Amino acid sequence: MSSSVFNHPFLSGLLGDEELEPYFSAENDISAMLHFESALALGLADAELVSKDIANSATAKIKDFTPDLDVLKAATARDGVVVPDLVRQLRAHCGDSEGAVHFGATSQDVVDTSLILRLFPCLEILETRLISIDTIFQILIDKHGEKPLMGRTRMQAALPLTVADRISNWRSPLSTHLVRLDEIKPRLLQGQFGGAVGTLNKLGDKATIVRKRLARELSLEFTDSNWHTRRDGLVEFSNWLSMLSGSIGKIGKDIVLMNQNEFEEIKLSDVGGSSAMPHKKNPVKAETLMSLARFNATQISAMHHTLLHEQERSGAAWTLEWMVLPQMIITTGNSLGTLRDLLNSIDQLGK
Amino acid sequence: MSSSVFNHPFLSGLLGDEELEPYFSAENDISAMLHFESALALGLADAELVSKDIANSATAKIKDFTPDLDVLKAATARDGVVVPDLVRQLRAHCGDSEGAVHFGATSQDVVDTSLILRLFPCLEILETRLISIDTIFQILIDKHGEKPLMGRTRMQAALPLTVADRISNWRSPLSTHLVRLDEIKPRLLQGQFGGAVGTLNKLGDKATIVRKRLARELSLEFTDSNWHTRRDGLVEFSNWLSMLSGSIGKIGKDIVLMNQNEFEEIKLSDVGGSSAMPHKKNPVKAETLMSLARFNATQISAMHHTLLHEQERSGAAWTLEWMVLPQMIITTGNSLGTLRDLLNSIDQLGK
Amino acid sequence: MSSSVFNHPFLSGLLGDEELEPYFSAENDISAMLHFESALALGLADAELVSKDIANSATAKIKDFTPDLDVLKAATARDGVVVPDLVRQLRAHCGDSEGAVHFGATSQDVVDTSLILRLFPCLEILETRLISIDTIFQILIDKHGEKPLMGRTRMQAALPLTVADRISNWRSPLSTHLVRLDEIKPRLLQGQFGGAVGTLNKLGDKATIVRKRLARELSLEFTDSNWHTRRDGLVEFSNWLSMLSGSIGKIGKDIVLMNQNEFEEIKLSDVGGSSAMPHKKNPVKAETLMSLARFNATQISAMHHTLLHEQERSGAAWTLEWMVLPQMIITTGNSLGTLRDLLNSIDQLGK
Amino acid sequence: MSSSVFNHPFLSGLLGDEELEPYFSAENDISAMLHFESALALGLADAELVSKDIANSATAKIKDFTPDLDVLKAATARDGVVVPDLVRQLRAHCGDSEGAVHFGATSQDVVDTSLILRLFPCLEILETRLISIDTIFQILIDKHGEKPLMGRTRMQAALPLTVADRISNWRSPLSTHLVRLDEIKPRLLQGQFGGAVGTLNKLGDKATIVRKRLARELSLEFTDSNWHTRRDGLVEFSNWLSMLSGSIGKIGKDIVLMNQNEFEEIKLSDVGGSSAMPHKKNPVKAETLMSLARFNATQISAMHHTLLHEQERSGAAWTLEWMVLPQMIITTGNSLGTLRDLLNSIDQLGK
Repeated sequence: MSSSVFNHPFLSGLLGDEELEPYFSAENDISAMLHFESALALGLADAELVSKDIANSATAKIKDFTPDLDVLKAATARDGVVVPDLVRQLRAHCGDSEGAVHFGATSQDVVDTSLILRLFPCLEILETRLISIDTIFQILIDKHGEKPLMGRTRMQAALPLTVADRISNWRSPLSTHLVRLDEIKPRLLQGQFGGAVGTLNKLGDKATIVRKRLARELSLEFTDSNWHTRRDGLVEFSNWLSMLSGSIGKIGKDIVLMNQNEFEEIKLSDVGGSSAMPHKKNPVKAETLMSLARFNATQISAMHHTLLHEQERSGAAWTLEWMVLPQMIITTGNSLGTLRDLLNSIDQLGK
Repeated sequence: MSSSVFNHPFLSGLLGDEELEPYFSAENDISAMLHFESALALGLADAELVSKDIANSATAKIKDFTPDLDVLKAATARDGVVVPDLVRQLRAHCGDSEGAVHFGATSQDVVDTSLILRLFPCLEILETRLISIDTIFQILIDKHGEKPLMGRTRMQAALPLTVADRISNWRSPLSTHLVRLDEIKPRLLQGQFGGAVGTLNKLGDKATIVRKRLARELSLEFTDSNWHTRRDGLVEFSNWLSMLSGSIGKIGKDIVLMNQNEFEEIKLSDVGGSSAMPHKKNPVKAETLMSLARFNATQISAMHHTLLHEQERSGAAWTLEWMVLPQMIITTGNSLGTLRDLLNSIDQLGK
Repeated sequence: MSSSVFNHPFLSGLLGDEELEPYFSAENDISAMLHFESALALGLADAELVSKDIANSATAKIKDFTPDLDVLKAATARDGVVVPDLVRQLRAHCGDSEGAVHFGATSQDVVDTSLILRLFPCLEILETRLISIDTIFQILIDKHGEKPLMGRTRMQAALPLTVADRISNWRSPLSTHLVRLDEIKPRLLQGQFGGAVGTLNKLGDKATIVRKRLARELSLEFTDSNWHTRRDGLVEFSNWLSMLSGSIGKIGKDIVLMNQNEFEEIKLSDVGGSSAMPHKKNPVKAETLMSLARFNATQISAMHHTLLHEQERSGAAWTLEWMVLPQMIITTGNSLGTLRDLLNSIDQLGK
Repeated sequence: MSSSVFNHPFLSGLLGDEELEPYFSAENDISAMLHFESALALGLADAELVSKDIANSATAKIKDFTPDLDVLKAATARDGVVVPDLVRQLRAHCGDSEGAVHFGATSQDVVDTSLILRLFPCLEILETRLISIDTIFQILIDKHGEKPLMGRTRMQAALPLTVADRISNWRSPLSTHLVRLDEIKPRLLQGQFGGAVGTLNKLGDKATIVRKRLARELSLEFTDSNWHTRRDGLVEFSNWLSMLSGSIGKIGKDIVLMNQNEFEEIKLSDVGGSSAMPHKKNPVKAETLMSLARFNATQISAMHHTLLHEQERSGAAWTLEWMVLPQMIITTGNSLGTLRDLLNSIDQLGK
């Protein structure tokens, strides 16, 4: 059952991403949120805000905690965020050690940190694909690079160039996107820890100690500020996602055009069939790259609107992020995977 | 597992719509697509393009057909659309009567008509909610309408007005949206039937007969043209969806502002709790209405881009519709449902 | 001097609209605003809120009033809207009859009504162009309609059709847009009159009398409510604009594709030259239609965001309308004009 | 006369930017384009593709060349870009030395390089404003930082914090935007030089010599590739612009909320008046920051769509850039200027 193409029984074959999707499951999210709570318990003990025994008991309890998802769903409808009820259930589960659960933290610390923890493997997947695509480009250049190709401007034949010229135009922005990712990463991959209004008011001068342990347990940087109200890290990342799928959309568009019957500038082994015309060989993967690019080019607008995040926490803006960002990540992942498959299916390039 | 908030184990409590979601399930889609194929078989018999026996045998077979979803998924990844393989599986299932399956039609006929068939119940749900909300507005006016309220312009106290004045401003656009829906419906609720390139080339002068039966079987109007390449019907519907959630977003924004502690202009019984501050009573439903409005106000852009639907069928533009339109419908449905619940939870209005 | 392409010394040749642009001049806006103030003065006299003499004296004075634009500009920067200072200047100019100026009204009444008054001629221009284009389509069908053309789906040759088939796909949505315009007009072409917070508080039971005269003087319908806070009329109009330019963008895209050297499916007499390649014959007008369509498909999003118009008047949302709507009107006007010129420049269609 | 608020006789007071606007004048653009042509002439001489005499004669002639703007406008309507006719006029003007004009270059080299040359001063203006705002933040912290302020989450009073806490949340993303700008600059500030299809086909092995001189004359880096078809540099810059105005929009939103009558958390000396209510003190500048942020958050979508820049030059995508990017720069400039004025007008902060 799915209004979303990303986890739809058959449309996800075209538009989903099986490698990335799991990171956005409730299970994976909850697991990361519990990881945060465990790390926090240990941090509270380090800061002598709870005893080591209670902290250890809490982390042990957290390990075998399974929340009641139906209750979480109803509670999320009421509270706008899953954490209050997750913490309530967790505290009940922890019994005597409940004092080590969530003390000093707030919902946003848990939700945002969980997201960032899951972005690590997502970025690795995206990066790996980007790098493997660069290799494929080199293989294509080696194989077809010197063949002639009509250069085209404003949708008219212009002057001849080579296949290598065209491929270089496809490849160069992708290389730059790797550079950009390196710049973005340290800004993006920051834990969130601020407490109720971002001031860690409950921790007083112990905040640094707790934060230190959080960082160690979660292998994640935590600066001495937080980003409750500044979402530019996530927006910058979204920009990167959409620039990436946009650069790939250009390749898709070019391949769709090269593949027109009258052009015969490319030969693809992986094409789609038609229900009405057996002779059709549709450049489905290349078309899909254009859809994905335009999808992200639309979503990016919502992400920029989330920057208007009022006061110390905006329910309205934060919720909008949840609706958009995971979709952008999956879309970009699919875009990379589909490009890789498309490039690998090129039998001939140039004319 | 879900990158989509609409069918996420706990976020769907806040952002999904359990009544509408089923219409976007693969099961429901396939069922509607098979309904189209059955109706077509009968139409082909009416037009004497296949024998009545074969048509009847086909429709009987279709009734107990269950496609292999895993194969459909892989095929959709290849073909860009589910129909070619669905038809292939269906033909194999029908055996001798396979000639009555999909003859003269194309993928777009099946997919688009399936969508329209499922929009009927969706529109009814949306309309029913709109009407029930109008009733609630009247109840609120009857109960609180004469109470004073500070009128506010440019976020500053302006001059006093009454609760009824404010509610009338909320209510009036929703009434107009009902009028708009009546105008849009006959343009939107049109079956799709054009064949490979929109000319029903295989049916020749029998097209009208087939079309007539399709219309009767599916209780759906089929004009003598098709809308393969003109998507303004769907875009106009999307405009309506986003105008509706936008008008509701304004109500959410107003309620969020009225509910500020210093204002005390509204009292809500249904509020959200915080994980860090037990005293918090967050206007979660009102906030959510703003998120939903801005989500749709973003998606609407993609729908307008799909109008650039090249030649006789654009894979790229069509796919983009699939990614966006179902989400807009669910979002609008949730917006109406959440508004209804929010209005019902108003204990006091005015000051 | 211009960051805007619409009134840029040379880019406006490509992207502006000389017939529509004047309606968005400060001069034309001020003239319409003063027309409102005159009509209001007469209405106030009808309602015996000022004497007929004072009203007549005011309307006479208004006729020869020229505001100081530099002062208006500085005041707009301060007040966020031109009206407070325009009224101040006008009252000073009217001297003894100042009591008949702006009494009971508010800035939004003046600005919104001025816009609507200027939309009348704009709509007429757009409608006239739409109708003339329909005629051109008929001429093209008469001349080239029976010629064969390769039908293309998913950017692949599909099956042959005729030029008439293709043109019908271009033409039909434009006809529907004319129908839509007729439905939209009565909702859009409404004067604005609500006073400070939309309740015409200063006019009491005389509001109807004043409103009646406003309607007569301005040849404009004024209902007994106002649309200060509900902007769905303008958003619906924007939807129409973008659907129109989107439908035209599809035609541009098709022509760009047909015009590819290898296709030779169209021959255009009006093409663009290149600075580097004398042989180039660029389908500039067709390309431009795509740019205009995507421009509007972007702007439409902002218009939907303006629906979140808080309380009795939102400075933030209202200002956003001003930034976007005029551009959408010019863009759509250019789109129609460019399409007309493009269609008129078709020397050959089909193959 | 203006459909654009940016150069409108009175609206530009609110929404324009007098310091930035001149860089988008036709005059300034033409001057930069001619600068490119001069530098190219000298480069051609260095490469011995024309004689030094002819090059010097050409550069001398270029100095006193004034194009016929009316002819340029008509030609731009035809060619889709100003350069072909500008070069034609320039060659006619240069007479015998016309061989040194535009040889080896293409329209895109001229237009894109002109844009980049004009971005230098624009970036300096934006950067200077950003830095000066940082100073104002420090002044505000020094003056009001220790005063208490109610921290608010989800539009509800949460826990107290200090004015310094709130201001730090405003300030920190702006600091990061300065860091981002430093990263973006070397990618953005690249000259464009590729010739007809990006291969500098006419220059052969002399390309490096010409490029070197271009770089020296224009004080601009030219790498050995070009960015005709990859627009990620401009898109990345647009992201930055919109992130900046978005971060500022958050400040505007906060100030609008703090300034509500019941809150009294801020006192502004620079407020707007109303035409109907003399008592109103509207937070116009803060509201405007929200409009500007949402405007850019919309436009950014169009910029991402331009990444689908087909083949060696896309007329459609390139034109869309022209419609959007200058507006985003002016909007961001105004956003910074308005924020600076708004912050300077704060008389009191905190409660």
